[in-house]
Amino acid sequence: MRAKPVQRDPLLVRLREGVEDFAASTPARFAITVFGILVLIFTGLFLLPISTTSGETPPLIDAVFTAVSVICVTGLATVDMATYWSGFGHAVIFVGVEIGGIGVLTLASILGLVISRKLGLRTRLLAAGDANPLRMRKGPISEGQAVRLGETGQLLRTVATSVLVIELGVAALLFPRMLIQGVDPLSAAWQSIYYSAMAFTNTGFVPTAEGLTPYETDPWFLTVLMIGVFLGAIGFPVIYVLARNIRRPKRWSLHVKLTIVTSLVLLIGGAILFFFLEYDNPSSMKGMDPGQRILQSFFISSMARSGGFATLDMHQFDGSSLMVVDMLMFVGGGSASTAGGIKVTTLAILFLAAFAEAKGVDDMEAFERRIPPDVLRLAVSVVLWGATTVAVSTVLLLWITPDERLDYILFDAISAFATCGLSSGFTQSASEPAQWILAGTMFFGRIGTVTLAAALASSTRRRLYKRPEERPIVG
Amino acid sequence: MRAKPVQRDPLLVRLREGVEDFAASTPARFAITVFGILVLIFTGLFLLPISTTSGETPPLIDAVFTAVSVICVTGLATVDMATYWSGFGHAVIFVGVEIGGIGVLTLASILGLVISRKLGLRTRLLAAGDANPLRMRKGPISEGQAVRLGETGQLLRTVATSVLVIELGVAALLFPRMLIQGVDPLSAAWQSIYYSAMAFTNTGFVPTAEGLTPYETDPWFLTVLMIGVFLGAIGFPVIYVLARNIRRPKRWSLHVKLTIVTSLVLLIGGAILFFFLEYDNPSSMKGMDPGQRILQSFFISSMARSGGFATLDMHQFDGSSLMVVDMLMFVGGGSASTAGGIKVTTLAILFLAAFAEAKGVDDMEAFERRIPPDVLRLAVSVVLWGATTVAVSTVLLLWITPDERLDYILFDAISAFATCGLSSGFTQSASEPAQWILAGTMFFGRIGTVTLAAALASSTRRRLYKRPEERPIVG
Ligand SMILES: [K+]
Ligand SMILES: [K+]
Repeated sequence: MRAKPVQRDPLLVRLREGVEDFAASTPARFAITVFGILVLIFTGLFLLPISTTSGETPPLIDAVFTAVSVICVTGLATVDMATYWSGFGHAVIFVGVEIGGIGVLTLASILGLVISRKLGLRTRLLAAGDANPLRMRKGPISEGQAVRLGETGQLLRTVATSVLVIELGVAALLFPRMLIQGVDPLSAAWQSIYYSAMAFTNTGFVPTAEGLTPYETDPWFLTVLMIGVFLGAIGFPVIYVLARNIRRPKRWSLHVKLTIVTSLVLLIGGAILFFFLEYDNPSSMKGMDPGQRILQSFFISSMARSGGFATLDMHQFDGSSLMVVDMLMFVGGGSASTAGGIKVTTLAILFLAAFAEAKGVDDMEAFERRIPPDVLRLAVSVVLWGATTVAVSTVLLLWITPDERLDYILFDAISAFATCGLSSGFTQSASEPAQWILAGTMFFGRIGTVTLAAALASSTRRRLYKRPEERPIVG
Repeated sequence: MRAKPVQRDPLLVRLREGVEDFAASTPARFAITVFGILVLIFTGLFLLPISTTSGETPPLIDAVFTAVSVICVTGLATVDMATYWSGFGHAVIFVGVEIGGIGVLTLASILGLVISRKLGLRTRLLAAGDANPLRMRKGPISEGQAVRLGETGQLLRTVATSVLVIELGVAALLFPRMLIQGVDPLSAAWQSIYYSAMAFTNTGFVPTAEGLTPYETDPWFLTVLMIGVFLGAIGFPVIYVLARNIRRPKRWSLHVKLTIVTSLVLLIGGAILFFFLEYDNPSSMKGMDPGQRILQSFFISSMARSGGFATLDMHQFDGSSLMVVDMLMFVGGGSASTAGGIKVTTLAILFLAAFAEAKGVDDMEAFERRIPPDVLRLAVSVVLWGATTVAVSTVLLLWITPDERLDYILFDAISAFATCGLSSGFTQSASEPAQWILAGTMFFGRIGTVTLAAALASSTRRRLYKRPEERPIVG
């Protein structure tokens, strides 16, 4: 009567298996459900009068927007975060970004398992063994040997441990600098941990009203923040491999190499562009000495990719710099990271396809590895999704906000989609309907690219026939 | 001593063979050379004092910009075209757009031959026989049976005949409407032929100072212009197939079906968007009756794809409509057409790839045909090229023009790239360096997508080894 195995399972195991089956069968719906429930819970918490400094219940839009921004680790805000929320409110924010950050890392990794398994079934090829942390320890897995999603718990522990270690490390580097600044030790401890969490989760909120102002020219503080943001944005699979094989580059997977190289190219290329485009802007870098210019250029370039901290006022930037920030934000960070955007590997795949086409070779190649052509199709789908989300959001915002410039609206729309959190100032001054649209953009930006790949890869249909081939002209 | 076959060739044949070898071996350089020489000749003609109304030599930038705009059938202008140029100047413009229009159709078709031949050699698959007019008449060509580019002359005659027939037809429909308007018969004849050429070549210049104003609400005149623009924008391969098989859709190739369906979707979708986005704009459609709104919505949608005629002032449009025009311009028209942009089939291929990915099937499919995966790679290359051109142009223009809004700069940059010719007013008021950048954008926009596909497809390198496969994570 099949009763025996069921009786052996305690309630918790059955619950876990239910969740795992849900994740595996409809990953997109699973992600929407998880993030949706988290947003609801945190909206409830922000609606509590003890969450605000004034002791009053905040307007619904501000509670919802803050909850979405916190859970999606975006960092956009409709209120002045530092002064509007109480100490309790800031504790909720802190817990929220940790859950959001760890949540997105775990979710992406779980869905990565789903993809790998489905791809394995579908193409009868093994997914790259070491791109996935679970795979790495166990070696390549044959088709018959199904990956149990029961390993979710183990994965969650690994992620949480990594997050804890990195955040404590970053906080330890920020703490003494704050003492030097004259912050009392207790506040310095809390603030350094808060900054560290905001850096590693790529959120970008600040704990105090003056924000980064005391440290805005400080190489130590800004560099530590950049390192925290970079580690968060590079993605968990990369951190996992690097933690074990930092000195053995031969063991680095293609995914690790592609992510690191593309990230560095974007970081350095962006910094060079900002250095020149803002050179003569009296509202940003004019009058700075060369070392400070270089520091600030790297800081903008690093934060534009999803960090969201800002030392300079984006509203005062030259239009050309805003466009460059737009492009960097849209690309975002690494796969299965706390950063958003279409992801650096997606961009890399597009360029590898164009290079292969230009060289006239049959396969996309990188680091002496051949990349299967179906990866390109996935990359194109992700970019189309991203471009469509940004386009719909921007057109709607422009339509309901007739007097605002495209410069600023496009900036905040891309920032919301890519969970970057930099703002031209539009978000805070926008009308309530515009803020609802931005909240929706943040939500779909966060769950979109994370789940799209899994959702697409998990739908498989076998065809028993081949249609005749025909080649349309393109270009 | 090999003297015999050479002696049999007259000079003209050897010249022709030289040109054909040039086109086949380095298609991109060939296209740049041809278009570059045409621009030089027409710059010389516009620099003649008899070309201007004032009888003075125009500034170099105006002569170059007009020559590029005419030869690339773009339609952007730094001067008031109708009043600045003399009767002789307008004759030069007329001849220029005919050469530019026929030139781009022929060039695209020649390069199409190059692609097909190289693809045939490369993939050992036959390119779709009927997508290419020359192929169609001769049936599929086996690899051993090389297509002689000596058929260029024949192709040129077919293209010129089609252009003549269509342009005379469109002019004949415009002529009586002009007589009704009270234009004297001789002027009406010249103007109707001028309008017809500007419509079919998708240029969009007007012959008189008042431009479209007398006809701006006239359904007949505007509809005939739309038909002329649509035929020019659909592409020569499609016209060729339709002219022979208009009533036999079973003989339409995949390319024909894909082009027509995507063009209609964009035309109707764009019209619906403009209808709603401009509904309450007092500077455009507010106060119009419903029929007129529908006519104007379709007119904008049709012209945005590369036509370049305008009855309403783009500068007064809502920011949301400008964004929609931006997107339509970027896509442009059909392959091997007088329209610009990345082309409708390129867009269709991206969406077909995403659909295939979402359905989890192995092949891209449309109209019961399978599309080979290397077409996607070519499409991605074309889109990357287009996006890069627009991005570089926009960032440069924003940088040297600090006070202008992104809304208007992006609009004219995309219009230049896609040879559309609609303007937000930026081009005419821009500084001279900005106009040089726009001229460069027009030139590379025109030769870019036409030649990129050929250049990419014609570079082939055989590999005797396969590298190990590895799958990075994307999205
Ligand atoms: K962020
Ligand atoms: K045009």
